[in-house]
Amino acid sequence: MRILGIDPGLGRMGWGVIEEEKAVIKPIGYDCIETPAKTPDEKRLLLIYKELTRVIEEYQPEVMAIEELFFSRNVSTAFMVGQARGVALLVAAQAGIEVITYAPSAVKLAVSGYGSADKKQIGQMVKAILKLKVLPKLDDTTDALAVAITHGFSGKLAKKLK
Amino acid sequence: MRILGIDPGLGRMGWGVIEEEKAVIKPIGYDCIETPAKTPDEKRLLLIYKELTRVIEEYQPEVMAIEELFFSRNVSTAFMVGQARGVALLVAAQAGIEVITYAPSAVKLAVSGYGSADKKQIGQMVKAILKLKVLPKLDDTTDALAVAITHGFSGKLAKKLK
Repeated sequence: MRILGIDPGLGRMGWGVIEEEKAVIKPIGYDCIETPAKTPDEKRLLLIYKELTRVIEEYQPEVMAIEELFFSRNVSTAFMVGQARGVALLVAAQAGIEVITYAPSAVKLAVSGYGSADKKQIGQMVKAILKLKVLPKLDDTTDALAVAITHGFSGKLAKKLK
Repeated sequence: MRILGIDPGLGRMGWGVIEEEKAVIKPIGYDCIETPAKTPDEKRLLLIYKELTRVIEEYQPEVMAIEELFFSRNVSTAFMVGQARGVALLVAAQAGIEVITYAPSAVKLAVSGYGSADKKQIGQMVKAILKLKVLPKLDDTTDALAVAITHGFSGKLAKKLK
């Protein structure tokens, strides 16, 4: 199963595509869509829309995995992240890709075995699981890979339970 | 000048198109896009995207007027409204329409002459300005017309200043 993980943001939208087959997870492609500051929101969103549409066309994922709404940050941040997340979900719906959401704590638990893991621990585990030589330059990309891995593992667990 | 006003929301996205010519404002078309609850966000956003794209094709507005980020409501609401607003902005960018934002207090001031006007006062003024026999059924539609009127009046004021 090919999974696209997304870490949404208006300035930086991390994405990571992994392939899960028989409990083995491989990285396929990952990067971060960066949009220029001091640019109207609508132009930044259009850039995200075009890039993400291209990623889906190129990698043909079957599922988009993305973190649930978060409730802890401030209203202004939630609003900006919400705008970017809305466009990511729209792209998935247009491509007919199923969207699965995970709580931030579920991502930490799945990737590191510890629901309160910090960014550094998550990064080290993403690197180990995907056998990367170096971590992606931006945390947003790593976080996108982490949520994709979470869905990869949840599939494995679901199969084991059958 | 033809102006599309938007009151964004995931469950209800109000829209209103007005025509402003030599300080006279006329209503052209207005309604509210309602999306079904208990439906995944991405499908609701796709519905908003399709409907709003159709509205722009049908009415050919030159400008989209929309309220700025708000900071007073709770984080969860901001996140949901943000998702819907992101899709509205994307549709504008795809159509090459300029987006102008107004603070909620600016909308109240422009429409009613009073920056702290309540919903009922705004409704009565929208009805009077557009010479409507009855107000739209939903507040979301009225609010969308109010922000469109705000841009119509701001153009008038700008011209007067020249």
